Amino acid sequence: MNNTFGTIFCVTTFGESHGPALGVVIDGLPAGIGIDPAFIQGELNRRRPGQSRVTTPRSEADQAEILSGVFEGKSTGTPLAILIRNQGQHSGDYSRLAELYRPGHADFTYEKKYGVRDYRGGGRSSGRETAARVAAGAVAKLFLKESGIDIRACAESIGPVRAKTCDWSQVENNAVRCGDPEAAAAMEEEIRRTAGEGDSLGGIVYGEIRNVPAGLGEPVFDKFDALLAHAMLSIGGVKGFECGSGFRAALARGSENNDAMTPPDGFASNHAGGILGGISNGNTICFRIAVKPTPSISGLQQTVDKNGKPAELRIGGRHDPCLVPRIVPVAEAMAALVTADLLLRARCSRA
Amino acid sequence: MNNTFGTIFCVTTFGESHGPALGVVIDGLPAGIGIDPAFIQGELNRRRPGQSRVTTPRSEADQAEILSGVFEGKSTGTPLAILIRNQGQHSGDYSRLAELYRPGHADFTYEKKYGVRDYRGGGRSSGRETAARVAAGAVAKLFLKESGIDIRACAESIGPVRAKTCDWSQVENNAVRCGDPEAAAAMEEEIRRTAGEGDSLGGIVYGEIRNVPAGLGEPVFDKFDALLAHAMLSIGGVKGFECGSGFRAALARGSENNDAMTPPDGFASNHAGGILGGISNGNTICFRIAVKPTPSISGLQQTVDKNGKPAELRIGGRHDPCLVPRIVPVAEAMAALVTADLLLRARCSRA
Amino acid sequence: MNNTFGTIFCVTTFGESHGPALGVVIDGLPAGIGIDPAFIQGELNRRRPGQSRVTTPRSEADQAEILSGVFEGKSTGTPLAILIRNQGQHSGDYSRLAELYRPGHADFTYEKKYGVRDYRGGGRSSGRETAARVAAGAVAKLFLKESGIDIRACAESIGPVRAKTCDWSQVENNAVRCGDPEAAAAMEEEIRRTAGEGDSLGGIVYGEIRNVPAGLGEPVFDKFDALLAHAMLSIGGVKGFECGSGFRAALARGSENNDAMTPPDGFASNHAGGILGGISNGNTICFRIAVKPTPSISGLQQTVDKNGKPAELRIGGRHDPCLVPRIVPVAEAMAALVTADLLLRARCSRA
Amino acid sequence: MNNTFGTIFCVTTFGESHGPALGVVIDGLPAGIGIDPAFIQGELNRRRPGQSRVTTPRSEADQAEILSGVFEGKSTGTPLAILIRNQGQHSGDYSRLAELYRPGHADFTYEKKYGVRDYRGGGRSSGRETAARVAAGAVAKLFLKESGIDIRACAESIGPVRAKTCDWSQVENNAVRCGDPEAAAAMEEEIRRTAGEGDSLGGIVYGEIRNVPAGLGEPVFDKFDALLAHAMLSIGGVKGFECGSGFRAALARGSENNDAMTPPDGFASNHAGGILGGISNGNTICFRIAVKPTPSISGLQQTVDKNGKPAELRIGGRHDPCLVPRIVPVAEAMAALVTADLLLRARCSRA
Repeated sequence: MNNTFGTIFCVTTFGESHGPALGVVIDGLPAGIGIDPAFIQGELNRRRPGQSRVTTPRSEADQAEILSGVFEGKSTGTPLAILIRNQGQHSGDYSRLAELYRPGHADFTYEKKYGVRDYRGGGRSSGRETAARVAAGAVAKLFLKESGIDIRACAESIGPVRAKTCDWSQVENNAVRCGDPEAAAAMEEEIRRTAGEGDSLGGIVYGEIRNVPAGLGEPVFDKFDALLAHAMLSIGGVKGFECGSGFRAALARGSENNDAMTPPDGFASNHAGGILGGISNGNTICFRIAVKPTPSISGLQQTVDKNGKPAELRIGGRHDPCLVPRIVPVAEAMAALVTADLLLRARCSRA
Repeated sequence: MNNTFGTIFCVTTFGESHGPALGVVIDGLPAGIGIDPAFIQGELNRRRPGQSRVTTPRSEADQAEILSGVFEGKSTGTPLAILIRNQGQHSGDYSRLAELYRPGHADFTYEKKYGVRDYRGGGRSSGRETAARVAAGAVAKLFLKESGIDIRACAESIGPVRAKTCDWSQVENNAVRCGDPEAAAAMEEEIRRTAGEGDSLGGIVYGEIRNVPAGLGEPVFDKFDALLAHAMLSIGGVKGFECGSGFRAALARGSENNDAMTPPDGFASNHAGGILGGISNGNTICFRIAVKPTPSISGLQQTVDKNGKPAELRIGGRHDPCLVPRIVPVAEAMAALVTADLLLRARCSRA
Repeated sequence: MNNTFGTIFCVTTFGESHGPALGVVIDGLPAGIGIDPAFIQGELNRRRPGQSRVTTPRSEADQAEILSGVFEGKSTGTPLAILIRNQGQHSGDYSRLAELYRPGHADFTYEKKYGVRDYRGGGRSSGRETAARVAAGAVAKLFLKESGIDIRACAESIGPVRAKTCDWSQVENNAVRCGDPEAAAAMEEEIRRTAGEGDSLGGIVYGEIRNVPAGLGEPVFDKFDALLAHAMLSIGGVKGFECGSGFRAALARGSENNDAMTPPDGFASNHAGGILGGISNGNTICFRIAVKPTPSISGLQQTVDKNGKPAELRIGGRHDPCLVPRIVPVAEAMAALVTADLLLRARCSRA
Repeated sequence: MNNTFGTIFCVTTFGESHGPALGVVIDGLPAGIGIDPAFIQGELNRRRPGQSRVTTPRSEADQAEILSGVFEGKSTGTPLAILIRNQGQHSGDYSRLAELYRPGHADFTYEKKYGVRDYRGGGRSSGRETAARVAAGAVAKLFLKESGIDIRACAESIGPVRAKTCDWSQVENNAVRCGDPEAAAAMEEEIRRTAGEGDSLGGIVYGEIRNVPAGLGEPVFDKFDALLAHAMLSIGGVKGFECGSGFRAALARGSENNDAMTPPDGFASNHAGGILGGISNGNTICFRIAVKPTPSISGLQQTVDKNGKPAELRIGGRHDPCLVPRIVPVAEAMAALVTADLLLRARCSRA
C-alpha cells in the first residue's frame, strides 16, 4: 500500500520522472460526480513546470488523459484512471548521477533500500511524481465541491520574506502564489537573487479547507489532523506540519488557546484549526507546512560516489530555486484527498 | 481501520476513560521476540497519572495483563493482546459534562459525529486512551531492541521555559522529563505557578530514533516522516510535527540545509533528521512535536450546552496542568510503532 | 492485518486455546446501535462446547464481557471489545503434542512458519478461536437487524446423511442443527456410531442472508461472494465454498442457469444465489460450505515428530466427532461480518 | 480498496470494456526482479479473445505497455504500471442494452448500486477486466519464478465432459486447455454444438501452485486457502471454490481425509490440498473453481427494462460459448497474486 493513499477514497499513483508516463488510479469515487476534464487540466497547469519566471524553465505539457471511470460526463463508481505522458525529458543530463549521490536528495536512500535505482531525474523520488497527486486532487475537489467544500493554499513565506496579509483573490495573480502582492514582489526578487547566487530557498505554505461540516475525522488514529499531517509530510521537501495555532500553542496558556464556544455551535476563535479530538468542528480547517530549500543547487557540494569515495558536485540543469509556488497546488491536492476520504468515511459513523 | 495503526505491525486499541478497561491487540509481531512483562509495566508506569508533583493526582494502577500471543516468554507470531482495567474512576464527577461542551475538548465534535457520547471523563477522547498506545509501544520497543534500535524523547520546552542542553541521563530524573536539570526545575516551577492560577501550559517534545539502518520508509505515501507525522498528530493535544530542521528549513538556503555526504556513507550534519526522500539514511531520526496547553482548566470559560444555549464552566477535578511530561512516553511509543512497522515492511523491498 | 477482517466494519480477534483469554475488537460499528449482551451471550452459547450429546463434553462457560464501546445500551462509534476468559483447560493433556505433529492439524505448519508454537490445544489454530468470531458476528447481527437483514444457517449433510427438506423452525431443536428432523436423527446416530469407531465425520453447512437490499458488494475484488468465500475459508476445517448453484452451475447450460427477470425487479429463480457481478440483486443470498471431518480421532495414525522421525499417535481427549453443528453459528457470524461491512461500504457508492 | 488486491504485493486494476484503456498498477513488487515484457504479452495472448475456434471471434490485440517501475530490465521497487489500450470495440452493438437488463449479467445490480452504468459491453463488469489481472499475474509469476514457484491450471470439465487424465504437456495444445486430449476433443465438440443451439456451457478449472515452501499463509483471516477463495470468487462467472479434497471431504471420515505424515516432513497423501491451518505445508497446493455457463446466449430470454416493464431479449454479438478456456490463465494469475503476496508477508513471520 506504499503508493496508495486513503481508505475509501483510495488513490494509487505511479510513474518516474523519465519513464514513459505518470498516472493515478482513483478508486472509491462515488458514482454520479460531474467530471470536468478542463478543471483537472487546469489544476495540472498550476503545478506544471515552466509556468513563470520563478519556476524551472523545463517545459512539460502534463496533458491528462482520462482512461476509465467516466461515462457521459459523470463518474461511474469504478476506478478513474488518469494518464500523463512524460515528454521532453533529457536523460543524457543525468548520466553522471548514476555514480554520485546528490546531497539532500533520495539518491543514497533509494540505493540503500532497493539496491537498484532509476537515477534519471530522481526517478520516483522526483517532484514530478506530484503531478499524479494533483490530478487526483482535482478529482477530489470536484467531489468536494458538490458538498460545498473548498480548499485553497498560498505562500506565507519564502526564505526571509513573510506575507503580512492574505488577500486570496491575489494568490494566483503572482508567480509565487502569495496573497500579499507587496510581499509577493519581494519574494520573487529574493528567489531570483538567490538563484543567481547558485542557491535556493525554502518557505511556508498556508492552507485552508472551508465549509467542512462538523463530524469528519476518525479517531483515534485517523484523526483529521493526523491524516493531513501524513498527507503533507508525504510530499517531497516538506519537513513540518502544524494545524491551527500549531507550534505557537506550545507557548500559550490554556485560557488563551482554548476556543470559547458561542451560541448555538460556533467558536469565538480558531486556535484549534477547525479540529477538536481529531474531528472537524465546523470551523475552517487551517494548517501550515514547512518546505525545505530545493536541494538541487548549482553551488559546489561535497558528496560521495557509489563506492563511498569523496566527490564534488555542481548540479546543472533546470531546477526550481524555490519549491513553494509549485507545492501550493500539491498541498491543496493532498488536503482534498484527505477530506474526500473522511467525508465518505463519516457516512458510516451513525446507525 | 480507525483504531488500527500499521500495515504489517498492526496495533488496534480500544477503551474509554470510564469503561471497564482499555487494551490493545498487536498483530504482526514476529514470532520469537522475548516479551518482558516488567518492561511493559515500566513503560506504563512512566505514563501513569499520579507519578509526580506535576501530574494529575488521580491514582490509576494501569496494571497490564497479557492475554495472548506469548508462550514460554516469547512471542508466537499470533496477536498479542494486553488488558488494562480501569480503576478508581469517579463517574459522578462528570455528570454535568453530559450537558455542556468543554472548550478545547472533543465533547462537541464527538456529539456531532456520533450522535451519542460517553461523556464520563471524555470517554474515548480522554488522554487515558494513550495507555494502550504505551503498552503497544513497549512491545514494539522490545522488538526493535533486537535490531539495536532505540527510541527516546524528552521535554524541550514547557511554556516559556526552554532547555538549553540535553543530557539524556537526566531525563527520567526530574518530574518534567527534561534533559537540562536547571531548565527542569524552572519548568516545574512554571507548571505549579500556572496551575495555581487556574491555567495550563503547553510545550515541545523532542524525540530520537537511533541506530535505524538506512532503507526504512515506503515512498511515496508511507514515507518514514509521513508515518511519524501521522502517528504524532494522532496523539490528543499534539498540534504540530517537524522532522530534522523542520520549520527552520523554511528560512534556510539549500547550501545550508543540505547535509553534505562524508565517506563512505555518512553525513556532515543532520538537517534532514535522518530521512531523505522518506527513507532513513542511517543518521539518527529526530523530530519535534508541539503540545497544546491542557484544555481542562479551573478558570471560568464561556461555552454552550447541548441545546446551543450559552453557559459558563469551571472544570474541577484532577487534571495535568501540562501534558508534556506524560506525552513523552506516548511519543516514544508511537515512534516505536512506526519504526517496527517500517522495519518489517523493509524486508520486502528487494528480491 | 492477518487477524483483522473487514474494511469499514473491522474485526480483530486474539487468543489461544490455553491462554488466559480470547477476545475481539470491533471497530467501525456505527454509533447508536442497540447492544444486547444477552443476545451476544446466546450466540456464544450456540457455539459453546458441551451443549449437546454430539459435541465435545468439555465444559467452557464462554462468558462474554463487554469492555468498551457501549454507553447506556447503545454503541458509541468507538471500538467495542469483548473478552472471553478461558476456563477449565487442562494443559497437561497436551504435553506430548509438543513433540508430535497431529495429522490434519496445523501443528507442523505453525512450527514451520513461526519457529515456535503454543502446542497446548492447538493454540491459535484451535477451533476455540471461533468464539471471538461468534461474539463479533453477534454484534454484526444486531447491526444488520436494524436494516431488517437476517442470517441463518443449518446442517445440510453430515457424512453420508443428507437433509431432504429444510424447516428452519426445526434447526435449533436438534443437536446437529438440521432443518429436517428425520435426517437430524439419522445424522446424530451416524455421529455417535462413527465416534464409537474412533473416527469422525464431515458435512455441508447451508446458509442464507435474507432481506439484503440490491447494491451491496464492491467489484472487482471485494465482490459479495468473494468476501463470503474469504470469510468462510478462513474458518478452520472449511475446504470449499459455493454460492447459488455453485458447482452444479458447471454442469448447467446458460439457458438453465440464467435467472430470468420478472417485473418490476424480481427473478424467476435464484441460481445466482442473490449475487450478480459481485453485487447483491435483492434475492436471498445463499451459499454452502464443505466441512472436513474432525482431524482429531482416537484411531491410530502415522505421523512424525519434531525431529522428522516416524511416530504413531492416538489422539485422546474430548473432541467433537463432527464439526458441523458448532460451525453453523460460526458460518452465520462470518456471513454477518461480511454483510455488515458491505452494508456500510455501500453508503459510499453514490454522490 | 475495492479494486486493489493484496497487502504487500498490491494490485490495483482499472478500465471498462469500451473505455480508452484497461490497466493495472502493481505496488510492492520487490526491486531487482527481471521483467520480461514478452512473457507478460504471452500471458495476455493466452487470455486474448479470438485465439481459437471456441472463443469469441472478437479481435483484440491486448498489447501491453509498461509505463513505470522497470529500469534496465529489472523492477525498481516502485509501482509497475501496465497499460492495455482498447481497440476495435463496436459501441453501437450495445445501444439497446442501455434499456434492458441482461439475465445473468451485472447490468441490474450496477444500476442499483451506482445509479449510473456504462452499459457498453458490460463496462467494468465485462470479462475484459480480467486482462489487467492477467498482466499483473504475469509479473507475479516472474517474481515467483525466482523462488522456484510455479503455477498452472487447466480445464477439468466442460459441461458434461470430464477429463479422465491430466497430461500437463498437452494443456496448451488444444483450444479448451484440457490435459486429456481425447476429452479435449469432446469438449470442443460439445461447445460448438451448444453454441449452435444458441446456448452456452460451464465447467471446472483445476489449478496447482507448486514448490511452495511450508509456512506461507497468515491466520486467522488471511489463510492461504481463504485468500485463494477470495481471489477466485472475484473472477466474473466463478461460483465455487474448493481446496484439496474440497466438497468430497464432507463425505469422508477423518481416518480417510487426514494426510498421514511421512519422515522427515512429507505427507502420504494430499487431501489438504497443500494447506493446513491456512498455512502451506510444502505439498502442491491444488484447487478447483466452478465456472458458470456464459450468460450471453442467443436464445430468447425473459427480462425487464429500466422501468421494470417485461421485455424479451436475444443477445447477439460475439461471445464465448464457454468461459473455461479463457478463465484458465485468469485463475493462474489470481493464484500468482495470492502466492506473491503471501511469500512476501511470510518474510515477517519470525524475529
